[in-house]
Amino acid sequence: MAPSVQPSSSPLRTSEGDEKYANVKWEELGFSLIPTDCMYVAKCRQGESFTEGKIVPYGDISISPCCPILNYGQGLFEGLKAYRTEDDRILIFRPHENALRMQDGAERLCMAQPSVEFFVEAVKQTVLANKKWVPPPGKGALYIRPLLIGSGAILGVAPAPEYTFLIYASPVGDYHKASSGLNLRVDHKSHRAHSGGTGGVKSCTNYSPVVKSLVEAKSSGFSDVLFLDAATGRNIEEASACNIFIVKGNIVSTPPTSGTILPGITRKSISELARDIGYQVQERDVSVDELLEADEVFCTGTAVVVKAVETVTFHDKKVKYRTGKEALSKKLHSMLTSIQTGLVEDTKGWMVDIDPCQG
Amino acid sequence: MAPSVQPSSSPLRTSEGDEKYANVKWEELGFSLIPTDCMYVAKCRQGESFTEGKIVPYGDISISPCCPILNYGQGLFEGLKAYRTEDDRILIFRPHENALRMQDGAERLCMAQPSVEFFVEAVKQTVLANKKWVPPPGKGALYIRPLLIGSGAILGVAPAPEYTFLIYASPVGDYHKASSGLNLRVDHKSHRAHSGGTGGVKSCTNYSPVVKSLVEAKSSGFSDVLFLDAATGRNIEEASACNIFIVKGNIVSTPPTSGTILPGITRKSISELARDIGYQVQERDVSVDELLEADEVFCTGTAVVVKAVETVTFHDKKVKYRTGKEALSKKLHSMLTSIQTGLVEDTKGWMVDIDPCQG
Repeated sequence: MAPSVQPSSSPLRTSEGDEKYANVKWEELGFSLIPTDCMYVAKCRQGESFTEGKIVPYGDISISPCCPILNYGQGLFEGLKAYRTEDDRILIFRPHENALRMQDGAERLCMAQPSVEFFVEAVKQTVLANKKWVPPPGKGALYIRPLLIGSGAILGVAPAPEYTFLIYASPVGDYHKASSGLNLRVDHKSHRAHSGGTGGVKSCTNYSPVVKSLVEAKSSGFSDVLFLDAATGRNIEEASACNIFIVKGNIVSTPPTSGTILPGITRKSISELARDIGYQVQERDVSVDELLEADEVFCTGTAVVVKAVETVTFHDKKVKYRTGKEALSKKLHSMLTSIQTGLVEDTKGWMVDIDPCQG
Repeated sequence: MAPSVQPSSSPLRTSEGDEKYANVKWEELGFSLIPTDCMYVAKCRQGESFTEGKIVPYGDISISPCCPILNYGQGLFEGLKAYRTEDDRILIFRPHENALRMQDGAERLCMAQPSVEFFVEAVKQTVLANKKWVPPPGKGALYIRPLLIGSGAILGVAPAPEYTFLIYASPVGDYHKASSGLNLRVDHKSHRAHSGGTGGVKSCTNYSPVVKSLVEAKSSGFSDVLFLDAATGRNIEEASACNIFIVKGNIVSTPPTSGTILPGITRKSISELARDIGYQVQERDVSVDELLEADEVFCTGTAVVVKAVETVTFHDKKVKYRTGKEALSKKLHSMLTSIQTGLVEDTKGWMVDIDPCQG
């Protein structure tokens, strides 16, 4: 079978690159795949450890039709970003956190676990091998997508006998093109996760089930869907691929990570930054009623970073929130991206330089 | 990357086959993969129809690392069986039902849908091409596994731009080796599905999340796990990969297909057969209390066919049920398999002959 995507197939590729940069129209980056030169691949048997991986040319992988990732959804992914600084260093945001989250997911889905060291080293190698694809400062980031998939053949429902850990990357810009803020629709019919399910890990199984709701919302002009908890239907959980915060006065609230929402790394970082500037941050159940009465609402995630919510629609009610220069989300976005892009000193130890000798 | 499984790798392969049969130790069949000669593959773009597929040698497929089946769980599977009759016909059990169920799943996951005709024709072609792998009468069946997967590359959470429909097959014997009956453990902590989720379609996303509970139960000596509904935690839903029935006097009860359990084809067929012999069949909520007080309990599914449950364990309580010759499940198993293997006339129009001219 022919590759689904040829490396040259993106409309954002230009005819020529140079020694420093790949041939990409950097000004036009959105959140779509621009295949890069290389990816990272490692394999291990169930019960063994990932000990060796390698950088290979980006391209289709070969996999058994009878493996659990294709048949039973035994797969996890991560998402993280590398940024180019003004002084031409390349920094990765909190890769150890992604490594730990993948380990939690691997435990939940009975998969072989890459060690934190192995994961972080593999991410660094992937970024280094795709250095030309890290956008110029201010133009975006190199989005890095680690996958852990059950790739060994097995017919019945059981852990795979073999696992593949793979990392690919793509330069990206904004996830949502909407400028002023997101327009969310609260989904009051379907839920994203349930207690004892996989909603608290970054399992592939959490995503295809929300696509229908997302497609329907987008076709009605919304940016994204906000899900409610399956147990009561009263509390907000998260959007299709990002966490949510509400602001009321000096209090910033976000749903707790009790197994049905993703423990977002941007979520955790933003909570810390909000506390740093004097806000009280509460991780607790947040009802739809509170959401509708908030001063401000925003979403966080690796892909969206920090994004203001302009409106929320629940049944026939549409509420508008503070956005723009006055919004807390604007300030937090600026604080976070300043650290990520090296504009301010990283006093938190969040950034990992792919080449410490240059740092 | 090297193929995960070489066609010759099964320990059940013998050195020689003949013109009629492949080289398999038919007496030793269980439910594990024995790769056959051929598989069926078709592709189509989102918004278009599957119009053409082909039989190709069984082996690894090539797929983009950035496709929704690997990243977001956008995949469905089916399972059905072909049987060899004493007069050497090959019959497939109710393939139209699998085709319809895959269409429901494709609608739920926003995927391109194979038409019923296309699906059934592809199944027939797959069986015909693997005719030597259909076990001798009474030794098992050819298990047929259609997959529909989001195979086109896309970075964000969205429907794939391209889909692959693939069918592979494997000769199989009994799913559970246990002879007298299954020993089920009721999982009172984790659930399989929630309202508005994907529990009612045969989505890959329903299976990897139950593996942990299943592995833990098996390591404690149980055959399988029985899940309770996420909404109340009081009603039984299904086991890890089969439906459940309880028998009390003349009444056979099974949970309703209201979105959180799989609408099993064996389930539907067994309900019809039970009615045929005078039982009252009720599709309704069945509480754990009722389960524990039943005369008999059994599971149904393509892989397990009809299998008696010998014991159910809920917390510290273990209940034993009627099994063996006196059990209704024994009678229903016999009725169903007699139709499937052509021992009795199929008056229901369930069986499809892969070569009607011989039929």
